[in-house]
Amino acid sequence: MKISLVKNILNAGNRIAGENRTLFDEKDIFVLNLMSSPGAGKTSLVEKTILALREEYRIGVIEGDIQDSYDAERIARLEIPVVQINTGGACHLDGNMIRETLSSFDLDQLDLLITENVGNLVCPAEFKIGENAKIMMLSTPEGADKPAKYPLMFAESAVLLINKIDLAPYVDFDFDKARHDALAINPQLSIFEVSCKSDSGLADWYAWLRQAIADFRAPRPKAGE
Amino acid sequence: MKISLVKNILNAGNRIAGENRTLFDEKDIFVLNLMSSPGAGKTSLVEKTILALREEYRIGVIEGDIQDSYDAERIARLEIPVVQINTGGACHLDGNMIRETLSSFDLDQLDLLITENVGNLVCPAEFKIGENAKIMMLSTPEGADKPAKYPLMFAESAVLLINKIDLAPYVDFDFDKARHDALAINPQLSIFEVSCKSDSGLADWYAWLRQAIADFRAPRPKAGE
Repeated sequence: MKISLVKNILNAGNRIAGENRTLFDEKDIFVLNLMSSPGAGKTSLVEKTILALREEYRIGVIEGDIQDSYDAERIARLEIPVVQINTGGACHLDGNMIRETLSSFDLDQLDLLITENVGNLVCPAEFKIGENAKIMMLSTPEGADKPAKYPLMFAESAVLLINKIDLAPYVDFDFDKARHDALAINPQLSIFEVSCKSDSGLADWYAWLRQAIADFRAPRPKAGE
Repeated sequence: MKISLVKNILNAGNRIAGENRTLFDEKDIFVLNLMSSPGAGKTSLVEKTILALREEYRIGVIEGDIQDSYDAERIARLEIPVVQINTGGACHLDGNMIRETLSSFDLDQLDLLITENVGNLVCPAEFKIGENAKIMMLSTPEGADKPAKYPLMFAESAVLLINKIDLAPYVDFDFDKARHDALAINPQLSIFEVSCKSDSGLADWYAWLRQAIADFRAPRPKAGE
Protein backbone atom coordinates (compact mmCIF):
# COMPACT_ATOMS: atom_id res chain seq x y z
CA MET A 1 0.00 0.00 0.00
CA LYS A 2 2.75 2.43 0.87
CA ILE A 3 4.55 1.59 -2.36
CA SER A 4 1.54 2.50 -4.47
CA LEU A 5 1.22 5.78 -2.58
CA VAL A 6 4.81 6.68 -3.44
CA LYS A 7 4.19 5.83 -7.05
CA ASN A 8 1.17 8.12 -7.16
CA ILE A 9 3.18 10.97 -5.69
CA LEU A 10 5.95 10.49 -8.21
CA ASN A 11 3.46 10.47 -11.07
CA ALA A 12 1.39 13.37 -9.80
CA GLY A 13 3.56 16.00 -11.46
CA ASN A 14 3.05 14.65 -14.97
CA ARG A 15 -0.64 14.04 -14.35
CA ILE A 16 -1.14 17.64 -13.23
CA ALA A 17 0.89 18.91 -16.19
CA GLY A 18 -1.49 17.01 -18.45
CA GLU A 19 -4.48 18.57 -16.72
CA ASN A 20 -2.91 22.01 -17.21
CA ARG A 21 -2.42 21.21 -20.90
CA THR A 22 -6.06 20.17 -21.29
CA LEU A 23 -7.16 23.44 -19.72
CA PHE A 24 -4.84 25.50 -21.93
CA ASP A 25 -6.20 23.69 -25.02
CA GLU A 26 -9.75 24.51 -23.98
CA LYS A 27 -8.79 28.15 -23.57
CA ASP A 28 -6.64 28.26 -26.75
CA ILE A 29 -3.59 29.40 -24.81
CA PHE A 30 -0.16 28.68 -26.27
CA VAL A 31 2.33 28.04 -23.47
CA LEU A 32 6.13 28.34 -23.52
CA ASN A 33 8.46 26.84 -20.92
CA LEU A 34 11.64 28.95 -21.09
CA MET A 35 14.79 27.41 -19.62
CA SER A 36 18.52 28.23 -19.34
CA SER A 37 21.43 28.57 -16.96
CA PRO A 38 21.26 31.46 -14.49
CA GLY A 39 21.91 34.76 -16.20
CA ALA A 40 21.67 33.60 -19.82
CA GLY A 41 19.06 36.26 -20.56
CA LYS A 42 15.63 34.67 -20.12
CA THR A 43 13.94 37.70 -18.58
CA SER A 44 15.38 39.98 -21.26
CA LEU A 45 13.95 37.66 -23.93
CA VAL A 46 10.54 37.74 -22.23
CA GLU A 47 10.65 41.54 -22.17
CA LYS A 48 11.65 41.79 -25.84
CA THR A 49 9.02 39.26 -26.90
CA ILE A 50 6.29 41.15 -25.05
CA LEU A 51 7.29 44.45 -26.64
CA ALA A 52 7.39 42.89 -30.11
CA LEU A 53 4.18 40.85 -29.95
CA ARG A 54 1.87 42.55 -27.47
CA GLU A 55 -0.22 44.10 -30.27
CA GLU A 56 -0.80 40.65 -31.81
CA TYR A 57 -1.39 38.48 -28.75
CA ARG A 58 -2.68 38.87 -25.21
CA ILE A 59 0.34 37.77 -23.18
CA GLY A 60 0.72 36.56 -19.58
CA VAL A 61 3.90 35.60 -17.75
CA ILE A 62 4.81 33.24 -14.91
CA GLU A 63 8.21 33.93 -13.34
CA GLY A 64 9.89 31.06 -11.49
CA ASP A 65 12.63 31.79 -8.97
CA ILE A 66 13.83 30.13 -5.82
CA GLN A 67 13.10 33.37 -4.01
CA ASP A 68 12.54 37.10 -4.63
CA SER A 69 10.25 38.78 -7.14
CA TYR A 70 12.78 40.87 -9.05
CA ASP A 71 11.93 39.34 -12.45
CA ALA A 72 8.17 39.65 -11.98
CA GLU A 73 8.65 43.32 -11.12
CA ARG A 74 10.54 43.81 -14.39
CA ILE A 75 7.63 42.25 -16.33
CA ALA A 76 4.95 44.12 -14.35
CA ARG A 77 6.50 47.40 -15.52
CA LEU A 78 5.31 46.42 -19.01
CA GLU A 79 1.73 46.22 -17.68
CA ILE A 80 1.40 42.55 -18.51
CA PRO A 81 -0.31 40.11 -16.12
CA VAL A 82 2.46 38.30 -14.24
CA VAL A 83 2.67 35.87 -11.34
CA GLN A 84 5.87 35.15 -9.42
CA ILE A 85 6.39 31.59 -8.21
CA ASN A 86 8.93 31.24 -5.41
CA THR A 87 9.93 27.59 -5.30
CA GLY A 88 11.45 27.96 -1.85
CA GLY A 89 14.55 25.97 -2.76
CA ALA A 90 13.28 23.70 -5.52
CA CYS A 91 15.45 23.76 -8.63
CA HIS A 92 12.67 23.68 -11.26
CA LEU A 93 9.00 24.41 -11.91
CA ASP A 94 6.47 21.57 -12.00
CA GLY A 95 2.87 21.16 -13.07
CA ASN A 96 1.48 21.68 -9.61
CA MET A 97 3.23 25.03 -9.18
CA ILE A 98 1.80 26.23 -12.48
CA ARG A 99 -1.70 25.06 -11.51
CA GLU A 100 -1.45 27.07 -8.29
CA THR A 101 -0.96 30.28 -10.29
CA LEU A 102 -3.82 29.85 -12.73
CA SER A 103 -6.52 31.40 -10.56
CA SER A 104 -4.47 34.62 -10.70
CA PHE A 105 -5.01 34.94 -14.47
CA ASP A 106 -8.15 35.57 -16.50
CA LEU A 107 -7.58 32.62 -18.83
CA ASP A 108 -10.26 33.83 -21.25
CA GLN A 109 -8.09 36.90 -21.86
CA LEU A 110 -4.83 35.14 -22.75
CA ASP A 111 -3.38 33.93 -26.06
CA LEU A 112 0.20 33.31 -24.99
CA LEU A 113 1.54 32.31 -21.57
CA ILE A 114 5.29 32.52 -21.14
CA THR A 115 6.71 30.67 -18.13
CA GLU A 116 10.28 31.45 -17.15
CA ASN A 117 11.77 28.51 -15.30
CA VAL A 118 14.36 28.57 -12.50
CA GLY A 119 17.85 29.22 -13.91
CA ASN A 120 19.24 25.72 -14.21
CA LEU A 121 20.53 23.85 -17.26
CA VAL A 122 19.75 20.44 -15.76
CA CYS A 123 16.61 19.82 -13.73
CA PRO A 124 13.87 21.86 -15.48
CA ALA A 125 14.26 19.71 -18.60
CA GLU A 126 12.98 16.69 -16.67
CA PHE A 127 9.57 18.15 -15.86
CA LYS A 128 6.48 18.95 -17.92
CA ILE A 129 4.35 21.85 -16.76
CA GLY A 130 1.65 21.81 -19.45
CA GLU A 131 3.65 23.66 -22.10
CA ASN A 132 3.32 23.49 -25.88
CA ALA A 133 7.06 23.90 -26.29
CA LYS A 134 10.22 24.02 -24.25
CA ILE A 135 12.50 26.87 -25.34
CA MET A 136 16.10 27.06 -24.15
CA MET A 137 18.77 29.73 -24.19
CA LEU A 138 22.52 29.28 -24.18
CA SER A 139 24.61 32.43 -23.85
CA THR A 140 27.96 32.72 -25.57
CA PRO A 141 30.01 33.26 -22.36
CA GLU A 142 28.88 29.80 -21.18
CA GLY A 143 30.85 28.11 -23.95
CA ALA A 144 30.04 25.78 -26.83
CA ASP A 145 30.70 22.60 -24.86
CA LYS A 146 27.29 22.78 -23.18
CA PRO A 147 25.28 20.53 -25.54
CA ALA A 148 27.69 17.68 -24.93
CA LYS A 149 27.65 18.22 -21.17
CA TYR A 150 23.94 18.93 -20.59
CA PRO A 151 22.24 16.94 -23.35
CA LEU A 152 18.76 16.48 -21.89
CA MET A 153 17.73 20.11 -22.16
CA PHE A 154 18.85 20.22 -25.80
CA ALA A 155 16.96 16.96 -26.44
CA GLU A 156 13.73 18.24 -24.89
CA SER A 157 13.65 21.72 -26.44
CA ALA A 158 12.00 22.81 -29.68
CA VAL A 159 14.11 25.97 -29.94
CA LEU A 160 17.65 26.89 -28.93
CA LEU A 161 18.34 30.61 -28.73
CA ILE A 162 22.08 31.31 -28.64
CA ASN A 163 22.05 34.63 -26.80
CA LYS A 164 24.62 37.37 -26.15
CA ILE A 165 26.14 37.14 -29.61
CA ASP A 166 27.19 40.77 -28.98
CA LEU A 167 29.79 39.30 -26.58
CA ALA A 168 31.15 36.86 -29.17
CA PRO A 169 34.18 39.05 -29.97
CA TYR A 170 35.28 38.81 -26.31
CA VAL A 171 34.62 35.14 -25.57
CA ASP A 172 35.75 32.04 -27.41
CA PHE A 173 32.39 30.66 -28.52
CA ASP A 174 32.48 28.11 -31.32
CA PHE A 175 29.13 28.56 -33.07
CA ASP A 176 29.75 25.65 -35.45
CA LYS A 177 30.51 23.26 -32.60
CA ALA A 178 27.46 24.37 -30.61
CA ARG A 179 25.17 23.91 -33.62
CA HIS A 180 26.71 20.60 -34.61
CA ASP A 181 26.55 19.09 -31.11
CA ALA A 182 23.04 20.39 -30.42
CA LEU A 183 21.68 19.03 -33.71
CA ALA A 184 23.39 15.68 -33.10
CA ILE A 185 21.30 15.42 -29.93
CA ASN A 186 18.12 16.83 -31.45
CA PRO A 187 17.94 17.09 -35.27
CA GLN A 188 14.56 18.89 -35.04
CA LEU A 189 15.95 21.75 -32.95
CA SER A 190 15.39 25.24 -34.38
CA ILE A 191 18.45 27.38 -33.62
CA PHE A 192 18.56 31.18 -33.63
CA GLU A 193 21.58 33.35 -32.85
CA VAL A 194 20.36 36.46 -31.04
CA SER A 195 21.30 39.36 -28.85
CA CYS A 196 18.63 40.59 -26.46
CA LYS A 197 20.85 43.65 -25.99
CA SER A 198 21.12 44.73 -29.66
CA ASP A 199 17.92 42.93 -30.90
CA SER A 200 20.03 41.12 -33.49
CA GLY A 201 18.34 37.94 -34.72
CA LEU A 202 15.19 38.34 -32.63
CA ALA A 203 12.96 38.80 -35.70
CA ASP A 204 13.58 35.14 -36.60
CA TRP A 205 12.50 34.09 -33.11
CA TYR A 206 9.31 36.14 -33.35
CA ALA A 207 8.58 34.55 -36.75
CA TRP A 208 9.03 31.07 -35.27
CA LEU A 209 6.67 31.92 -32.43
CA ARG A 210 4.01 33.40 -34.73
CA GLN A 211 4.09 30.25 -36.86
CA ALA A 212 3.92 27.95 -33.82
CA ILE A 213 0.87 29.83 -32.52
CA ALA A 214 -0.77 29.69 -35.97
CA ASP A 215 -0.17 25.93 -36.12
CA PHE A 216 -1.63 25.55 -32.63
CA ARG A 217 -4.72 27.49 -33.63
CA ALA A 218 -5.31 25.47 -36.79
CA PRO A 219 -8.28 23.09 -36.43
CA ARG A 220 -7.27 20.21 -34.19
CA PRO A 221 -9.13 17.26 -32.70
CA LYS A 222 -10.79 18.12 -29.42
CA ALA A 223 -10.71 15.71 -26.50
CA GLY A 224 -13.29 12.98 -27.05
CA GLU A 225 -13.51 13.40 -30.84
CA MET B 1 9.84 -0.61 8.71
CA LYS B 2 9.64 0.80 5.22
CA ILE B 3 9.66 4.31 6.63
CA SER B 4 12.90 3.74 8.48
CA LEU B 5 14.43 2.30 5.31
CA VAL B 6 13.54 5.45 3.38
CA LYS B 7 15.03 7.56 6.14
CA ASN B 8 18.27 5.60 5.96
CA ILE B 9 18.47 6.11 2.23
CA LEU B 10 17.89 9.82 2.55
CA ASN B 11 20.57 10.10 5.22
CA ALA B 12 23.07 7.87 3.47
CA GLY B 13 24.59 10.70 1.43
CA ASN B 14 25.58 12.74 4.46
CA ARG B 15 26.81 9.66 6.31
CA ILE B 16 29.07 8.69 3.41
CA ALA B 17 30.28 12.29 3.08
CA GLY B 18 31.27 12.12 6.76
CA GLU B 19 33.15 8.88 6.15
CA ASN B 20 34.96 10.50 3.22
CA ARG B 21 35.90 13.42 5.48
CA THR B 22 37.28 11.08 8.14
CA LEU B 23 39.42 9.34 5.53
CA PHE B 24 40.68 12.66 4.12
CA ASP B 25 41.59 13.79 7.67
CA GLU B 26 43.57 10.61 8.23
CA LYS B 27 45.42 11.17 4.97
CA ASP B 28 45.87 14.95 5.54
CA ILE B 29 44.11 15.79 2.27
CA PHE B 30 42.48 19.20 1.92
CA VAL B 31 39.38 18.95 -0.26
CA LEU B 32 37.61 21.66 -2.24
CA ASN B 33 34.07 21.39 -3.65
CA LEU B 34 33.95 23.86 -6.55
CA MET B 35 30.49 24.95 -7.72
CA SER B 36 28.95 27.42 -10.20
CA SER B 37 26.50 27.82 -13.06
CA PRO B 38 27.45 26.09 -16.31
CA GLY B 39 30.28 27.90 -18.08
CA ALA B 40 31.28 30.26 -15.25
CA GLY B 41 34.90 29.11 -15.50
CA LYS B 42 35.39 26.27 -13.00
CA THR B 43 37.68 24.16 -15.16
CA SER B 44 39.79 27.19 -16.05
CA LEU B 45 40.19 27.95 -12.34
CA VAL B 46 41.24 24.36 -11.68
CA GLU B 47 43.83 24.59 -14.46
CA LYS B 48 45.21 27.91 -13.19
CA THR B 49 45.33 26.66 -9.59
CA ILE B 50 47.23 23.54 -10.62
CA LEU B 51 49.77 25.55 -12.60
CA ALA B 52 50.27 27.99 -9.72
CA LEU B 53 50.47 25.51 -6.84
CA ARG B 54 51.73 22.22 -8.24
CA GLU B 55 55.24 22.81 -6.89
CA GLU B 56 53.86 23.31 -3.38
CA TYR B 57 51.18 20.62 -3.16
CA ARG B 58 50.47 17.21 -4.68
CA ILE B 59 47.12 17.84 -6.38
CA GLY B 60 44.39 15.51 -7.57
CA VAL B 61 41.15 16.40 -9.36
CA ILE B 62 37.66 14.90 -9.60
CA GLU B 63 35.59 16.22 -12.51
CA GLY B 64 31.81 15.96 -12.22
CA ASP B 65 29.67 16.12 -15.35
CA ILE B 66 26.37 14.64 -16.39
CA GLN B 67 28.18 13.04 -19.28
CA ASP B 68 31.38 13.28 -21.36
CA SER B 69 34.99 13.53 -20.18
CA TYR B 70 36.01 16.77 -21.82
CA ASP B 71 37.00 18.51 -18.56
CA ALA B 72 38.98 15.53 -17.27
CA GLU B 73 40.89 15.46 -20.55
CA ARG B 74 41.80 19.13 -20.07
CA ILE B 75 43.16 18.37 -16.59
CA ALA B 76 44.94 15.20 -17.68
CA ARG B 77 47.01 17.28 -20.13
CA LEU B 78 48.60 18.87 -17.04
CA GLU B 79 49.73 15.39 -15.91
CA ILE B 80 47.70 15.55 -12.71
CA PRO B 81 45.77 12.52 -11.41
CA VAL B 82 42.14 13.05 -12.43
CA VAL B 83 38.94 11.01 -12.32
CA GLN B 84 35.83 11.87 -14.34
CA ILE B 85 32.48 11.19 -12.67
CA ASN B 86 29.56 10.97 -15.09
CA THR B 87 26.43 11.40 -13.04
CA GLY B 88 24.23 10.05 -15.82
CA GLY B 89 21.63 12.77 -15.38
CA ALA B 90 22.01 13.69 -11.71
CA CYS B 91 22.36 17.42 -11.17
CA HIS B 92 25.02 17.34 -8.42
CA LEU B 93 27.82 15.27 -6.87
CA ASP B 94 27.20 13.40 -3.63
CA GLY B 95 29.33 11.61 -1.08
CA ASN B 96 28.79 8.20 -2.58
CA MET B 97 30.00 9.30 -6.02
CA ILE B 98 33.18 10.69 -4.46
CA ARG B 99 33.74 7.47 -2.50
CA GLU B 100 33.51 5.47 -5.72
CA THR B 101 36.44 7.42 -7.20
CA LEU B 102 38.82 7.11 -4.26
CA SER B 103 40.30 3.75 -5.22
CA SER B 104 41.54 5.47 -8.40
CA PHE B 105 43.85 7.77 -6.41
CA ASP B 106 46.92 7.02 -4.29
CA LEU B 107 45.66 8.92 -1.27
CA ASP B 108 49.08 8.81 0.41
CA GLN B 109 50.39 10.93 -2.47
CA LEU B 110 47.82 13.77 -2.30
CA ASP B 111 47.78 17.06 -0.39
CA LEU B 112 44.93 18.79 -2.20
CA LEU B 113 41.91 17.25 -3.92
CA ILE B 114 39.86 19.61 -6.06
CA THR B 115 36.38 18.39 -6.98
CA GLU B 116 34.57 20.25 -9.74
CA ASN B 117 30.83 19.83 -9.33
CA VAL B 118 28.17 19.68 -12.05
CA GLY B 119 27.45 23.16 -13.41
CA ASN B 120 24.36 24.17 -11.44
CA LEU B 121 23.81 27.14 -9.12
CA VAL B 122 21.10 25.34 -7.13
CA CYS B 123 21.38 21.66 -6.26
CA PRO B 124 25.11 21.09 -5.51
CA ALA B 125 24.89 23.45 -2.54
CA GLU B 126 22.52 21.03 -0.79
CA PHE B 127 24.98 18.12 -0.64
CA LYS B 128 28.15 17.46 1.32
CA ILE B 129 30.78 15.29 -0.34
CA GLY B 130 33.47 15.28 2.37
CA GLU B 131 34.97 18.66 1.51
CA ASN B 132 36.80 21.10 3.77
CA ALA B 133 35.30 24.04 1.92
CA LYS B 134 32.73 24.83 -0.73
CA ILE B 135 34.05 27.37 -3.26
CA MET B 136 31.71 29.06 -5.70
CA MET B 137 32.18 31.11 -8.85
CA LEU B 138 29.87 33.72 -10.31
CA SER B 139 30.81 35.12 -13.72
CA THR B 140 30.05 38.71 -14.61
CA PRO B 141 27.80 37.90 -17.62
CA GLU B 142 25.41 36.09 -15.25
CA GLY B 143 24.52 39.35 -13.52
CA ALA B 144 24.66 40.72 -9.99
CA ASP B 145 21.14 39.60 -9.07
CA LYS B 146 22.27 36.02 -8.47
CA PRO B 147 22.90 36.16 -4.68
CA ALA B 148 19.31 37.28 -4.12
CA LYS B 149 17.92 34.60 -6.45
CA TYR B 150 20.13 31.62 -5.52
CA PRO B 151 20.94 32.28 -1.86
CA LEU B 152 21.78 28.77 -0.65
CA MET B 153 25.01 28.44 -2.60
CA PHE B 154 26.21 31.80 -1.30
CA ALA B 155 25.23 30.76 2.23
CA GLU B 156 27.13 27.45 2.05
CA SER B 157 30.34 28.67 0.42
CA ALA B 158 33.52 29.85 2.14
CA VAL B 159 34.75 31.69 -0.97
CA LEU B 160 33.04 33.53 -3.83
CA LEU B 161 35.18 34.06 -6.91
CA ILE B 162 33.64 36.67 -9.21
CA ASN B 163 35.12 35.52 -12.52
CA LYS B 164 35.38 37.02 -16.02
CA ILE B 165 36.06 40.54 -14.77
CA ASP B 166 37.73 41.03 -18.17
CA LEU B 167 34.18 41.07 -19.60
CA ALA B 168 32.98 43.72 -17.15
CA PRO B 169 33.28 46.55 -19.73
CA TYR B 170 30.80 44.72 -21.98
CA VAL B 171 28.22 43.53 -19.45
CA ASP B 172 26.31 45.47 -16.82
CA PHE B 173 27.65 43.82 -13.68
CA ASP B 174 27.14 45.73 -10.45
CA PHE B 175 30.08 44.64 -8.26
CA ASP B 176 28.83 46.61 -5.25
CA LYS B 177 25.39 44.99 -5.39
CA ALA B 178 26.85 41.49 -5.79
CA ARG B 179 29.18 41.97 -2.80
CA HIS B 180 26.50 43.59 -0.66
CA ASP B 181 23.86 40.93 -1.35
CA ALA B 182 26.31 38.03 -0.98
CA LEU B 183 27.64 39.34 2.34
CA ALA B 184 24.10 39.93 3.60
CA ILE B 185 23.50 36.20 3.10
CA ASN B 186 26.91 35.11 4.40
CA PRO B 187 29.01 37.70 6.28
CA GLN B 188 31.96 35.26 6.50
CA LEU B 189 32.24 34.89 2.72
CA SER B 190 35.66 35.70 1.25
CA ILE B 191 35.17 37.43 -2.11
CA PHE B 192 37.80 37.72 -4.85
CA GLU B 193 37.35 39.41 -8.22
CA VAL B 194 39.31 37.44 -10.79
CA SER B 195 39.82 36.71 -14.46
CA CYS B 196 40.96 33.21 -15.30
CA LYS B 197 41.72 34.59 -18.76
CA SER B 198 44.06 37.44 -17.74
CA ASP B 199 45.09 35.96 -14.31
CA SER B 200 43.92 39.20 -12.66
CA GLY B 201 43.18 38.70 -8.97
CA LEU B 202 44.14 35.03 -8.85
CA ALA B 203 47.10 35.65 -6.51
CA ASP B 204 44.62 36.52 -3.75
CA TRP B 205 42.80 33.22 -4.30
CA TYR B 206 46.05 31.28 -4.15
CA ALA B 207 46.93 33.08 -0.90
CA TRP B 208 43.55 32.16 0.59
CA LEU B 209 44.04 28.53 -0.39
CA ARG B 210 47.60 28.37 1.02
CA GLN B 211 46.35 29.77 4.33
CA ALA B 212 43.40 27.37 4.46
CA ILE B 213 45.70 24.41 3.89
CA ALA B 214 48.11 25.70 6.55
CA ASP B 215 45.22 26.03 9.02
CA PHE B 216 44.08 22.51 8.17
CA ARG B 217 47.57 21.13 8.77
CA ALA B 218 47.96 22.84 12.14
CA PRO B 219 47.69 20.39 15.03
CA ARG B 220 44.06 19.39 15.42
CA PRO B 221 42.25 16.91 17.65
CA LYS B 222 42.14 13.43 16.16
CA ALA B 223 38.99 11.35 16.32
CA GLY B 224 38.67 9.87 19.80
CA GLU B 225 40.85 12.45 21.55
